[in-house]
Amino acid sequence: MNISHIEHIGIAVKSLEESIPYYENILGLKCYNIEEVADQKVKTAFFKVGQTKIELLEPTSPESTIAKFLENRGQGIHHIAYAVDDTATTLHELADKEVRLIDKEPRGGAEGLQIGFAHPKATDGVLTEFCCPGKE
Amino acid sequence: MNISHIEHIGIAVKSLEESIPYYENILGLKCYNIEEVADQKVKTAFFKVGQTKIELLEPTSPESTIAKFLENRGQGIHHIAYAVDDTATTLHELADKEVRLIDKEPRGGAEGLQIGFAHPKATDGVLTEFCCPGKE
Repeated sequence: MNISHIEHIGIAVKSLEESIPYYENILGLKCYNIEEVADQKVKTAFFKVGQTKIELLEPTSPESTIAKFLENRGQGIHHIAYAVDDTATTLHELADKEVRLIDKEPRGGAEGLQIGFAHPKATDGVLTEFCCPGKE
Repeated sequence: MNISHIEHIGIAVKSLEESIPYYENILGLKCYNIEEVADQKVKTAFFKVGQTKIELLEPTSPESTIAKFLENRGQGIHHIAYAVDDTATTLHELADKEVRLIDKEPRGGAEGLQIGFAHPKATDGVLTEFCCPGKE
């Protein structure tokens, strides 16, 4: 696996509207994109910090995994996403190493990325995403 | 505040010895430094991922805040550290904005950094560190 950088850090929040002002007014970051990912039942807000994005995640349904995370643990860091050359190859390599996966094949994520999650039981307690730009 | 990048992501683990192989053998990262920070009652292991470091934190005492985190929440992401121009100035700016702080003045952290933490109640649920290189 060839990880170039941390693509984003996903943070679960109850409300984008309530959380964005902290990132903009206290940290001085700028929200440059708000996007709904229907598949994941979330609304996302993005901020750029050097090579890495902060991705705020607000659930759009009580069935969203983010809603369940908020219920169990409250607001906080939800996952790390590593930028890889190719998500499909990375997921296949992990499967070959018998790493438990949530996604065996990539799916579409926010910002046109091809994403795939490993299972936190296989990644030392940290929910871990691998992603690369989607191919048009 | 002028944040240039995410300096590191702190991850609480029970044992560096048990966790390092996941980062090296599965993610393909390289542990380049292991350091004890007596003040914080932790032993740390560092991996570089682009601009950002992964900092694993193992408690060296049951009194360590990391030991308490592990007890309450298990292994997982503990904090985000933003790289700023000057930690002291940043902490003073935050105090002026009435942001609740753990550290009102910088203290020494791992890798010779000057660090300071804001309180998670003031940072939208995310334990947040600000850091800059220490002045020799």
